[in-house]
Amino acid sequence: MQFEVTEEYLEKISSAIKLNDIKSLEKQLKKLHPADIAGILNELDLVNGKKLFNFLEDKIAADSLIEMEEEKREHFLASLTSEQIADQIDHLPSDEAADVIGELPDHVQDEVLRHIEKDDAEQASDIVDLLKYEEGTAGALMEKELVRVNVNHTVWECVREMRRQAEKVENIYAIYVVDDNDKLVGHLSLKKLLTTSLRTKILEVLNPNIISVKTDTLSEEVANIIKKYDFVVLPVIDNLGRLVGRITVDDVVDVMSEEATEDAQKMGGMEALEESYMSTSYFQMIKKRSGWLVILFIGESFTATAMSFFENSISKAVVLALFVPLIISSGGNTGSQASSLVIRALALGEVSIKEWWRIASREIWVGLSLGIILGCIGFLRVAVWSAFVDVYGPHWVSVGITVGITLVSVVLWGNLMGSLFPLILKRMGWDPAVASAPFVATMVDVTGLIIYFSVAAIMLRGILL
Amino acid sequence: MQFEVTEEYLEKISSAIKLNDIKSLEKQLKKLHPADIAGILNELDLVNGKKLFNFLEDKIAADSLIEMEEEKREHFLASLTSEQIADQIDHLPSDEAADVIGELPDHVQDEVLRHIEKDDAEQASDIVDLLKYEEGTAGALMEKELVRVNVNHTVWECVREMRRQAEKVENIYAIYVVDDNDKLVGHLSLKKLLTTSLRTKILEVLNPNIISVKTDTLSEEVANIIKKYDFVVLPVIDNLGRLVGRITVDDVVDVMSEEATEDAQKMGGMEALEESYMSTSYFQMIKKRSGWLVILFIGESFTATAMSFFENSISKAVVLALFVPLIISSGGNTGSQASSLVIRALALGEVSIKEWWRIASREIWVGLSLGIILGCIGFLRVAVWSAFVDVYGPHWVSVGITVGITLVSVVLWGNLMGSLFPLILKRMGWDPAVASAPFVATMVDVTGLIIYFSVAAIMLRGILL
Repeated sequence: MQFEVTEEYLEKISSAIKLNDIKSLEKQLKKLHPADIAGILNELDLVNGKKLFNFLEDKIAADSLIEMEEEKREHFLASLTSEQIADQIDHLPSDEAADVIGELPDHVQDEVLRHIEKDDAEQASDIVDLLKYEEGTAGALMEKELVRVNVNHTVWECVREMRRQAEKVENIYAIYVVDDNDKLVGHLSLKKLLTTSLRTKILEVLNPNIISVKTDTLSEEVANIIKKYDFVVLPVIDNLGRLVGRITVDDVVDVMSEEATEDAQKMGGMEALEESYMSTSYFQMIKKRSGWLVILFIGESFTATAMSFFENSISKAVVLALFVPLIISSGGNTGSQASSLVIRALALGEVSIKEWWRIASREIWVGLSLGIILGCIGFLRVAVWSAFVDVYGPHWVSVGITVGITLVSVVLWGNLMGSLFPLILKRMGWDPAVASAPFVATMVDVTGLIIYFSVAAIMLRGILL
Repeated sequence: MQFEVTEEYLEKISSAIKLNDIKSLEKQLKKLHPADIAGILNELDLVNGKKLFNFLEDKIAADSLIEMEEEKREHFLASLTSEQIADQIDHLPSDEAADVIGELPDHVQDEVLRHIEKDDAEQASDIVDLLKYEEGTAGALMEKELVRVNVNHTVWECVREMRRQAEKVENIYAIYVVDDNDKLVGHLSLKKLLTTSLRTKILEVLNPNIISVKTDTLSEEVANIIKKYDFVVLPVIDNLGRLVGRITVDDVVDVMSEEATEDAQKMGGMEALEESYMSTSYFQMIKKRSGWLVILFIGESFTATAMSFFENSISKAVVLALFVPLIISSGGNTGSQASSLVIRALALGEVSIKEWWRIASREIWVGLSLGIILGCIGFLRVAVWSAFVDVYGPHWVSVGITVGITLVSVVLWGNLMGSLFPLILKRMGWDPAVASAPFVATMVDVTGLIIYFSVAAIMLRGILL
């Protein structure tokens, strides 16, 4: 029932295109969803892609276009005239039309819009309107197509109006009720509409409890609202409360998935990719990854500086150097756990930065407990090894205690840094996901070393140092 | 327009409950969505919660129940009799009813089901049916309520049938067409139904292109299909192709969000939490975090073993110890980037394990490039420092080259480990997200040290060693 673009299938299609075998193409494509046709278009070269595209019905061609990978689509659109692009966009809902136009170079945008205006002035004005909203806000996500009825009308007028508007609206989902100033005052379910006498006033049957967002609400919050209330559609209002658009759940599903991917990549210690993993070019990949790697490298190179201050201690007690990786990584690992927890809780709206003290006081205890667990294991590691091999010398107890105490402190410290960094970043208006595992680890490594050698200086004074 | 459970609001509600002030309660609650009432119920204590609950309309009470936090709901349900629970569940769609019943202790499950059976045998049988599907599959996600019509009927019969079934189905979305054996053969849009003559046969107007999933399709794949095709609803069939249920997008939105959270936590180097961050208890938190921390600690403690083999080199050239954190963290950071990229690409279905060679050959070049960038910076770090401070001794060029060559190798190695580990884990049937940044870093640390001291042994022989 599902479909995957296999190589055989691609060959079949390619040869049908080359042979101009319309019958075979028709048979192959008839059963496919535009998203699948887009998958084929992504794989074909430009010449064959264009042939296939011209063969498709207008509506299906437009829907396939919007489902293509961004880079391929840009490439594809660049080979069409402004008029051809306008013809395609005419078949798309306003939000998707605005997305496609937004990707075009400025002068092409104007030409395409002029072509659309000739054919459908309302669509052109809707698109221009949508283009002005900032990316990442409800305004940029919404579509203008929706069914709106006036609160003072009767059900009969409403049904007539609905039939008229329904032509432009692919899926109705909900009927929005506005007053004479176009302010959103409620909604009406299709079920209700169909079971009410035609003479009833809308005012008497509308549901005034309606949740909406403003055009400048952030997409992340839009996603959280749709998720919380299990909505399929959400109305968008302007600052005066006037109904300006609606956001459907499919757009939000895409936002959620993109945001989870971006967060995962940032949390892995790199810039988020703009394309999918496989379609990101080699140079793009190096660019997105090397920036953070170099920053982390420079940050981490302070460990060399920090350690050089303790070079004397190390030369006296080489045994201290052996535990450096173990100690700093324990702090980093704990910090990585804490930052992942807090970043995700912030993204879901489970915690807010105002609660920083609640988070910190909780994480102090958690960090202390985890530190004690690792500290004990660390001491045991030294003790057990010393029982068999003379690797830590006669003062293994002091070495073990030094390692144990350091682990407790470093883990506690790493945990606190990991949980508070995302909050600090958010407070500064940054993306908390930047507090990646490598980022937190780097911060903890330098301080961890200072803690380690300071504990050692106290514990091993007169013994090894 | 939105609502947040503030402390003032909670106090208002609590005092209204205590005073039995029904008028005030009615006014407060009338405007609230069940998801918001659930937010209030989560915060109230059991006694007040029960009072509030009894005050709600049956349907709203049931919808609020399903939106409560799992732990609170369990607590709440434990205070109700089986009959009271059954009364609530009667108002829920089958999938939510099954979710609630699934959380109950076994003996209570049976009692509740018997009560439901008395009232509505079909609902009871639907729930029993849903309970048998494994968690994480389409069967466990789907609801039994849907509108199905026979392909041999006319549009008129279909409309009549639809009206009858619509009572049980909260949102219709789509009409599914089955044959005499109940096999899914197509679907019909509401629009089509309303614009077709009543005498037309369904066979003539149905759309036979329908994408469905099987009961054992994994939720992750269900989410990917719904996302790819922008569906609001997706039919579920059994192995004989018979229509058994449907999955709505709101359930998938929850699945996606939960999976992103679980992945983020696993990628942070811990077990995924079962509850939200704030409602996870202290002991639960320690349990979920300490397991991996201890495993990573034990893995990382091999660095101490590895370094003890090179203790002699370190005592001869303490300068080598200074670069240990810098070198191993560079390998770990690169590995963390690579694993985040591949884990996320696997989750989105952008890459499959069959493509491991394509991924590896790509990452070899990326790793080499990143390694050369960091290697050069590493060498420069040593060179520039040596120009000002005599920290690396007269042989700083050799030390610099050792550090540079090691960085190239360790970064290349870390990158390869990070990109291939998730694929290996997936191949073994594990969750690729387990290849967390700390996990990859630990693997790379031990090998990175061996690479470092081996390069040093070759480069610095006769000079420092």
